[in-house]
Amino acid sequence: MASIQDISTSAAINLLSALAFLLAFAFLRLQPINDRVYFPKWYKKGIRSSPRGSGPIVNKFVNLDYRTYLKFWTWMPAALRMPEPELIEHAGLDSAVYIRIYLLGLKIFVPIALLAFAVLVPVNWTGQTLDDVKDLTYSDIDKLSISNVPAGSLRFIAHIVMAYIVTLWTCYVLYKEYEIITNKRLHFLASESRRPDQFTVLVRNVPPDLDESVSEHVGHFFCVNHPNHYLMHQVIYNANKLASLVEKKKSLLNWRTYYETRYERNPKNRPMTKTGFWGLCGESVDAIDYYTAEIKKTVEEEAAEREKVVSDPKAIVPAAFVSFKSRWAAAVCAQTQQASNPTIWLTEWAPEPRDVYWDNLAIPYVELNIRKLLMGVAMFFLTFFFMIPIAFVQSLASIDGITKVLPFLKPLIQMKKVKSIIQGFLPGIALKIFLAILPTILMMMSKIEGLRSLSSLDRRSAAKYHLFLLINVFLGSLITGAAFQQLHKFLNQSPSEIPITVGVAIPMKGTFFITYIMVDGWAGIAAEILRLVPLILFHLKNTFLVKTEQDRDQAMDPGCITFASSEPRIQLYFLLGLVYAVVTPFVLPFIIIFFAFAYVVFRHQIINVYDQNYESAAAFWPDVHRRVVIGLVISQLLLMGLLSTKSIAKSTPVLLILPVLTIWFHRFCKGRFESAFVKFPLQDAVVKDTLERATEPNLNLKAYLQDAYVHPVFRTIEIEKAAAVDEEENNPLVETKRNSRMSKSASTASGITPEAATKDAARHI
Amino acid sequence: MASIQDISTSAAINLLSALAFLLAFAFLRLQPINDRVYFPKWYKKGIRSSPRGSGPIVNKFVNLDYRTYLKFWTWMPAALRMPEPELIEHAGLDSAVYIRIYLLGLKIFVPIALLAFAVLVPVNWTGQTLDDVKDLTYSDIDKLSISNVPAGSLRFIAHIVMAYIVTLWTCYVLYKEYEIITNKRLHFLASESRRPDQFTVLVRNVPPDLDESVSEHVGHFFCVNHPNHYLMHQVIYNANKLASLVEKKKSLLNWRTYYETRYERNPKNRPMTKTGFWGLCGESVDAIDYYTAEIKKTVEEEAAEREKVVSDPKAIVPAAFVSFKSRWAAAVCAQTQQASNPTIWLTEWAPEPRDVYWDNLAIPYVELNIRKLLMGVAMFFLTFFFMIPIAFVQSLASIDGITKVLPFLKPLIQMKKVKSIIQGFLPGIALKIFLAILPTILMMMSKIEGLRSLSSLDRRSAAKYHLFLLINVFLGSLITGAAFQQLHKFLNQSPSEIPITVGVAIPMKGTFFITYIMVDGWAGIAAEILRLVPLILFHLKNTFLVKTEQDRDQAMDPGCITFASSEPRIQLYFLLGLVYAVVTPFVLPFIIIFFAFAYVVFRHQIINVYDQNYESAAAFWPDVHRRVVIGLVISQLLLMGLLSTKSIAKSTPVLLILPVLTIWFHRFCKGRFESAFVKFPLQDAVVKDTLERATEPNLNLKAYLQDAYVHPVFRTIEIEKAAAVDEEENNPLVETKRNSRMSKSASTASGITPEAATKDAARHI
Repeated sequence: MASIQDISTSAAINLLSALAFLLAFAFLRLQPINDRVYFPKWYKKGIRSSPRGSGPIVNKFVNLDYRTYLKFWTWMPAALRMPEPELIEHAGLDSAVYIRIYLLGLKIFVPIALLAFAVLVPVNWTGQTLDDVKDLTYSDIDKLSISNVPAGSLRFIAHIVMAYIVTLWTCYVLYKEYEIITNKRLHFLASESRRPDQFTVLVRNVPPDLDESVSEHVGHFFCVNHPNHYLMHQVIYNANKLASLVEKKKSLLNWRTYYETRYERNPKNRPMTKTGFWGLCGESVDAIDYYTAEIKKTVEEEAAEREKVVSDPKAIVPAAFVSFKSRWAAAVCAQTQQASNPTIWLTEWAPEPRDVYWDNLAIPYVELNIRKLLMGVAMFFLTFFFMIPIAFVQSLASIDGITKVLPFLKPLIQMKKVKSIIQGFLPGIALKIFLAILPTILMMMSKIEGLRSLSSLDRRSAAKYHLFLLINVFLGSLITGAAFQQLHKFLNQSPSEIPITVGVAIPMKGTFFITYIMVDGWAGIAAEILRLVPLILFHLKNTFLVKTEQDRDQAMDPGCITFASSEPRIQLYFLLGLVYAVVTPFVLPFIIIFFAFAYVVFRHQIINVYDQNYESAAAFWPDVHRRVVIGLVISQLLLMGLLSTKSIAKSTPVLLILPVLTIWFHRFCKGRFESAFVKFPLQDAVVKDTLERATEPNLNLKAYLQDAYVHPVFRTIEIEKAAAVDEEENNPLVETKRNSRMSKSASTASGITPEAATKDAARHI
Repeated sequence: MASIQDISTSAAINLLSALAFLLAFAFLRLQPINDRVYFPKWYKKGIRSSPRGSGPIVNKFVNLDYRTYLKFWTWMPAALRMPEPELIEHAGLDSAVYIRIYLLGLKIFVPIALLAFAVLVPVNWTGQTLDDVKDLTYSDIDKLSISNVPAGSLRFIAHIVMAYIVTLWTCYVLYKEYEIITNKRLHFLASESRRPDQFTVLVRNVPPDLDESVSEHVGHFFCVNHPNHYLMHQVIYNANKLASLVEKKKSLLNWRTYYETRYERNPKNRPMTKTGFWGLCGESVDAIDYYTAEIKKTVEEEAAEREKVVSDPKAIVPAAFVSFKSRWAAAVCAQTQQASNPTIWLTEWAPEPRDVYWDNLAIPYVELNIRKLLMGVAMFFLTFFFMIPIAFVQSLASIDGITKVLPFLKPLIQMKKVKSIIQGFLPGIALKIFLAILPTILMMMSKIEGLRSLSSLDRRSAAKYHLFLLINVFLGSLITGAAFQQLHKFLNQSPSEIPITVGVAIPMKGTFFITYIMVDGWAGIAAEILRLVPLILFHLKNTFLVKTEQDRDQAMDPGCITFASSEPRIQLYFLLGLVYAVVTPFVLPFIIIFFAFAYVVFRHQIINVYDQNYESAAAFWPDVHRRVVIGLVISQLLLMGLLSTKSIAKSTPVLLILPVLTIWFHRFCKGRFESAFVKFPLQDAVVKDTLERATEPNLNLKAYLQDAYVHPVFRTIEIEKAAAVDEEENNPLVETKRNSRMSKSASTASGITPEAATKDAARHI
């Protein structure tokens, strides 16, 4: 119901704030003191180190070279310049495929927007229904929408044809993209160098045995059932308590360093602390002495616990990582059922060592099922009862709502500019705050569900979050924003009427979603690149905790793509785009700008900032694909509902074909591509095994795998280990095509090796 | 709305007809001439042969021993006497588990019925609501139902508690039964002797190769990807045309034999036939000469086609049966993905040779998906448009309907007995006729869908038929029977109102379903044991076609359990029982009688009559389990709907817990048991392989498997082959526990070896 003017005010505000963020970013990133905040990826890779300027000391902190400021926008082309194969090499396939989601958005919506503006906008504009209605609830934007077409008009044929084109085009792009990403994944896996998880299978629910320990039992079982293939296994210790002690020690050490630093700077005042809760209450003591004593106590406890875990047979959980002599045998074991009782000896691909979520490896079958049930019920309540506060805030955030609840504000609100701000800003912000705390809760719920790797936890949380956004943000905004009272009615409507109720609300809500896109999409993405929170945290740590260069390395928080919360949010834009493509094409440019802007920003971020916790080789793509298809089906159903109110009854059967075809398309794609994401074909395993056997006949695999799956708290020499593995990764045993192609391209025109890229990046500073 | 009297009339009619069938059966089975109709199983097994009485020739045809007639009922205890392990040995696990479905019904409903009659019937009877209503639409049976309880009464607590008990008890019994059957299946598979399908995998979608033939390509692929394990493979010929020629020849031969027999009996008239359609039109020719010429022509055609198929490389379809050196390797290959493209080199367990559905082995991936889509759409139309004729006939079949449409019949119908017959008989019969032609259509649809074994075709058709019965018979009778006009309303109701509409109809429809149970269940089962159609067909064949003893063997049609149509019908009784357990417990005894009677009858039939086409080792149980669970959930939802109209609003959340728990229970059971029905655990394969290697180190597996998977038309010496395999099955290479236990039990009290059982059966004749 907002007018063109409201929209443009909002657009201006959001554009300005986005611009402010970008300028701040452009300025801050040029300061050497912030180098580790905006380029941590390169530090982590060891390619870049702290600036050691030969000039005056001030150069170490502030950039005085005015020329660089003039080229502040160069990060954008720089971000786009790195070719994709190199991006995969540099940041991993997960990241490279993640930004392809934005690209997918552009591929889908740019042609649709062009067509919609060429065809639908003129059709709608000349509909002239709203000209007759002298009602303030309609704005100029609505004249561009389907609302402006008179009921029963033949013009709706254009919309139905457009719906077909949107469906076909989206399916085509989705199919192509799925194909590309499947090939990328297979190629990535095929060209990967030797990694422990290729040979290893996670075995859970080892049944108890009276005569044998877990370790012996696992060994015997696989010796018998995978003769000639079984190599070794590693038991899993229940080190949760030990891990928490290590965490505690780390925190205590930080506090001691903090107080020592304070004492050094101000040697007169010896710092004091209180022993109570969070240092807020209790007895006052000397801080450095107190923490030194605490640390000593914790170190002793840790040693005792470590001793206990290693020696106590009860600390071994009934699960193990079993390694095989070849990739073929591991692939076989992961894909087959071992025992006739399908709840014991469960095998699955071992996640990467760094991807393992250690707490959940030993949950019994029945408990796992009960947890899933409880979380399902909890999810239901969370989804459906979260709705009430959002609806409440949104109803307040309308002009009418505020004047009703707080009548004394009326004169202020009636001022034109204030009114624009409230209408353009508040509803989006209210939603945004609600959503901010949610991903943490959902991740906690996924952890309770018992998933065993960080990557699957992320995927599971994303699925939950998507459901939540769908019901609460999308449907919630459509229904309750218009009238909270509709909620009850909605629950009691017939299946054929629900799409109508929602569908009718869609054209009316176009402007609300435009605002939402600008706040959440534009300004949000610009805030992402500024990295305000990591910036502040880094400088705080740098001031109080950092003593050595290594400390400084650890003070960096490169962060990573928060798949669990970002991907469902992108899906909301897909959904909005698909829903509004036929109804109000005016929404599309806003979505396209979001996708384009986000693509550039995230490409920059994954090149320079993020350091992924794991590499799942784009295992999330089937989820992305499925959710776009869900969005497509929703858009078709809603259009069906909307058109059935426009006195063109015959449209329903014509449009009913679309969801049937779309769901069939989804099943087809699932059969065609999905197994590449969940299984590992034997053919590929044989190829890698054969190559390895030919090039390295004397490989000592047992030594290579010996400590691959050790709980992180047992890794005292963790960093050296990681480096060793890293080195192996960079010097693959078999010269693969991909590497040779890379070095070829490096020697030719566009080629950028990592070193060259660093220089490239440095040049722009 | 039928009164007690209507019900008892109907019961009397059905009981009498059932009794008549049983008496006819008791008489007919004692006649030696019918021996092959009522005991074909024993003939097929070669244990029983045509009676060669030493007495007068008439004894060969008619049984004159009056004493045997006095013991006509003995087949019932005889059927129950054979212990289950022996039954499995004798008839296969499929049959033994099939009759356990009836047993499951008894286990679920007998305790529930006892409890319901002890608790709910008194609660309902003393409700006294219907005493006040002086309305003819209620009968005495309704006084026993929930309708008699006043709205808002606290008595409904008894019903809610009962609903919980029904759910918990059903789930408990289902769980136990699933466990028992899983163990039986695993035990059956483990104690099975060597069979070709244990070593063999069906490979489909072999990709085309320019340089190699299909056979070479398959050989190379599996040599490379399953080194040390691959043994051999058999290509599959497209012999559909050849098979139809063989069929044609068989039919022509039969016709010639028929005319020859006629000629022998009446040498004066040389039989003539017409050459046109079905011998009804066209030129008249000498029959024997005509068919001799036709046979000669067909034999020539067949030889040419056979030559063509074997020599033409294009007759080889891109699929093959690949055999491995061990069961372990076959299990591995069947469960893993071979190539990175998941639409080629698809592997699955090979069905038993006799279970293969040869026509569907070579359907490309895309075509398969399109076929599924088309059949899904066809199924939708079939299910929803079949409803109209049924509703029409049923509305005619009510007294009011008939008097309206055919008013001149009014005086006849108003006669008390005629009225009873119409109300008790017609609605059931109308449904029955509609349903008779359906299974064939559904099986055809399943074949088009591209399933590759007879067992899976049966299961798939059963699923379709179940959906059909659910929507058309159950829901259709509840809604349209009451008012055909409700149909449209039903489609436009809210999700929360649909259970109410249907739920409210349930108590009113109790008597209709009692009638249905008596017609379909009682009389239908009694007709099953009489085998009227096979009886007539056998005697016709015996008269006209049989010349040798072998001909007579082939004239026997033992039939088999028609799983695709019988199982969904049983499920209807489960559904009715679960729905009415809480609402109108009076329905339960009728269902219990059905289950008990059917159990005895089918036990008799599988012992003496049926000869299964395949043995799937109870692979259908997950379907049976799932459908009972579906019935349970439907009953819970309908009860929820019904109670929400009784002014006890708080019942809904209390009852809502039940479907959630039930669905969770289903998922739990699926995870716990289902994989035993779809996968083959490596542990079991290793045990069998090891035993075999120890007992028979010099086994020539290649020779054993050489001709296992040859299209039946190429088996010229088919019968001898089958006998050889059979012999192998009876003399297992490894003395398993089961066999030793069997022989032990045979030597002790109750033990009956097959031979003893034959004598046993013979004794009762």
